[in-house]
Amino acid sequence: MKVYKKIILPKGFKASGISAGIKRGAKPDLALIFSKKPAKAAALFTTNKIKAAHIKVCLKHLKNSDSFNALMINSGNANCFTGDKGMHDAEAIMAQLAKKLNFKKDNILIASTGIIGKSLPVDKIKRAIPLLVGALSSKGLISAVRAIMTTDTFPKIATRRINIAGKKVFICGFAKGAGMISPNMACAEHRRSATMLCFILTDASISQRALKQALNSAVEDSFHCITVDGCMSTNDTVIALANGAAENISVDKNKNFNLFALTLKNICLELAKMIIKDAEGATKFIEIKVKGAKTTQEAKKAALAVANSNLFKTAIYGKNPNFGRIVQAIGASGIDVKEKDLKIKLSPLNKKNVFVEVDINKGKACTKVYTSDLTPEYIKINAEYN
Amino acid sequence: MKVYKKIILPKGFKASGISAGIKRGAKPDLALIFSKKPAKAAALFTTNKIKAAHIKVCLKHLKNSDSFNALMINSGNANCFTGDKGMHDAEAIMAQLAKKLNFKKDNILIASTGIIGKSLPVDKIKRAIPLLVGALSSKGLISAVRAIMTTDTFPKIATRRINIAGKKVFICGFAKGAGMISPNMACAEHRRSATMLCFILTDASISQRALKQALNSAVEDSFHCITVDGCMSTNDTVIALANGAAENISVDKNKNFNLFALTLKNICLELAKMIIKDAEGATKFIEIKVKGAKTTQEAKKAALAVANSNLFKTAIYGKNPNFGRIVQAIGASGIDVKEKDLKIKLSPLNKKNVFVEVDINKGKACTKVYTSDLTPEYIKINAEYN
Repeated sequence: MKVYKKIILPKGFKASGISAGIKRGAKPDLALIFSKKPAKAAALFTTNKIKAAHIKVCLKHLKNSDSFNALMINSGNANCFTGDKGMHDAEAIMAQLAKKLNFKKDNILIASTGIIGKSLPVDKIKRAIPLLVGALSSKGLISAVRAIMTTDTFPKIATRRINIAGKKVFICGFAKGAGMISPNMACAEHRRSATMLCFILTDASISQRALKQALNSAVEDSFHCITVDGCMSTNDTVIALANGAAENISVDKNKNFNLFALTLKNICLELAKMIIKDAEGATKFIEIKVKGAKTTQEAKKAALAVANSNLFKTAIYGKNPNFGRIVQAIGASGIDVKEKDLKIKLSPLNKKNVFVEVDINKGKACTKVYTSDLTPEYIKINAEYN
Repeated sequence: MKVYKKIILPKGFKASGISAGIKRGAKPDLALIFSKKPAKAAALFTTNKIKAAHIKVCLKHLKNSDSFNALMINSGNANCFTGDKGMHDAEAIMAQLAKKLNFKKDNILIASTGIIGKSLPVDKIKRAIPLLVGALSSKGLISAVRAIMTTDTFPKIATRRINIAGKKVFICGFAKGAGMISPNMACAEHRRSATMLCFILTDASISQRALKQALNSAVEDSFHCITVDGCMSTNDTVIALANGAAENISVDKNKNFNLFALTLKNICLELAKMIIKDAEGATKFIEIKVKGAKTTQEAKKAALAVANSNLFKTAIYGKNPNFGRIVQAIGASGIDVKEKDLKIKLSPLNKKNVFVEVDINKGKACTKVYTSDLTPEYIKINAEYN
C-alpha cells in the first residue's frame, strides 16, 4: 500500500473516491476528478453497436464544449441497455454535480462500469455528491482508482514526467479492466472494445487536436493490442484531460509532440499490460508476436486470433505445448497464410510469462498482442458475477 | 449398447473399426467403409487456411475420379501441419489399402482427426490394414463410429428410410465432434469449419450434382449452425457416398430430390445437435434463435456471436440470467442493431435445455444456432489433452 501513497496528481487536479452504495457492502464505487482550470479533452469509446448511456452523454458534451472541469465515474452499474431513462439518469446526476461544483453540466464528463441492463441508483448517487466533492484532494487519486475497480484485484496507475522546453510536464494514467476485455474504440468523429476504462490526466498545455492525435495512436498500440476474452464491451472508454497547468509551450508538433505522444503510448501500454496481468482468473501473461506479415493490420488480425482462441488459452493454462492450436488459430484467422511459410516458437510454459512468436514469412510487418490463459477461475468469476 | 446393434448400413456398404495403435491403450482408432459397387461422392472441407493432409489428398482424388469404393478414417492423429510428408504418408497408406482391396488408390477417400503437427504412424496403420479389411461387415458400423471418436463420450449416428418411387432408400449418417467445433466448410469448387467429421452413406441412386447440392444445403442448415468453442478446425470434413444399390430411379429433381434433400438435412441437424449435446465439458444444450433480421446471414452472424461469447456461456453454466451479456454480444457482432429495437427472451436456466430468443426488429429473416455452456470441465479436458 505504501507505494500508492506517493502517487500524486498532475498540477491543478484533485480526485476523490467514496462508497455511494451502488455496490453492496460499502465498497468504493464513485470517483471524481476535478480541475478548476478547464482541461482540453480527447476521448475514445467502444465500437459496440449497443453503447452505455455515459457514452451518448459524453459525445453530446464533447460536441457542446471544448473544455472540462470534472469527470465522474461509477462502478457497480454499467448504465447500459437502460434506454432514454439511462441518459436522463446520467444527466440528472451531472446536473446535481454541476450545481455543487458551480460549473455548467456541459463541462462535465461521466463514465460507468458494472452490470448491464440495470438502472443507476440515481438518488443514492445524488445524495453522495456532497461527500464526493468534499473529499476532493490532490492526494485523492488512489481513492478514485479504487472506486472504479470491479473484478480488478489491484489498482492500475502509470505515471511519467517529461520535460517540454524547460517545463516539467506530468502525465498520469489509471485504468480498470479484468473481464469483458477486447477493446476496439473510436473517437467521436472517426470510426473505429472490454469494459475497460482508462483516464489520462496531464498538466500539459496541448491543443485538442494534438491530444486527440496522440491518444488515438497510443490506444491503437496498447489497449487495442490486448484481449482477455474477446468480448468487446458496451462501455469501453478512454478519456484524456489536459489542463495546461504546467504552463509549457503548447505541445503541438515536432519533437515536443513526439515526446508527449511516445510517453502517452508508454503509459497506455503499461496500463494495458496491467489489465492483462490482472485478467480474471489468469495464471499466465502471454505475449504473442506475429512477424513477417504484409501489414501491421494483418499481423494484428493473426495475433488476436491466437489470443482469442479458447483452445490455445486452455493449453497454456495446462502448460501443454500444443502448438497445433496456434496453427489452427492462425489458419482460421482470415489472413492468407501457407503451411510451409509458418514458423512457430513457444517459450517454456512453466513460467508466469509466456512468449509466442509466429512468423508467417510474407512481408516485414510485425506486431505484439497480450493476453491471459483461460482458467477454471475465469469461469467461476463469470458464472457467479451477478 | 443394445440400440446400436440394431443399426444397419445402407445396401452394399460394409464397415469395420479396429485399434491400429495410433492412440495409446489399444483404443479403436482406424475405421473403414467399403462398397463394392462404386459410390458417387460429395464432400465439404474446412475453410481454415491450414488444411490437414487428408483434405489435400481427397481433393486430388475427387478431381481424378467420380466414383469411390472405400473411405478410411483414423483418429488420434490429425495428420495436419505435417507438410509434404503428411501427404506422402496418406498416399502410402491408401496405396496399401488399394492393393488389399484390389481397387485403384484414386477410388479411395481418407480422413483424419486428432493431434495437429505429428506424423502419422504409417507402419502401424499399414500393418493394421489386413485386420481392418478382414473385419468388414454389414454390421460393422458401430465399430467404425467408435473408431473415429476422440473426446466424444458417445457414438453419433442418425438414420432415415425414405420411399423413392416405390423403392426403399436408406440414408445413414455418423459423426464425431466434441471440441474445436465451429464448422464452416466449402466444397471443392466453391468457397465456403470443428474437427468435426461427418460421413453420410446411402444406397440411393443419385447424380453427383444432386448429391452435392443436397449436401451443401444440409450442411449450411446444420453443421454451420453449431459452435462449441469458436475454433474452426484444420480437419473438418463431410463426405457423402451414394452407391445406388437401392436401384431407385435417380434422385435428381422435383419432389424426389426435395424429399432426399430434406431427409439429408434432418440427419445432419440430428448429428449436429448430438455434437453439441456431447460438447466438451457441457452441462447445457443452448438454442439461440435470432429473428427480425434483414437476412438469414445477418441473423446467423448475430446468433453465432452470442453462441461464441465466453461471458454468455459461463453465465449459462452458472445459471446466471445475465441478459446484459447477450446485449453485449449482439452489439459486438458486427451487425447493425439499435438498442430500442432489441428484445431478448431467456428460458429458465435450471433446465438442461436453454432457449434464447433475440428479436432485432429489422426484418423478417430468422435463424437458429446451437451451442453449449463453457465449464471448468471444458478447461480440464483441453488443458490436459496431449
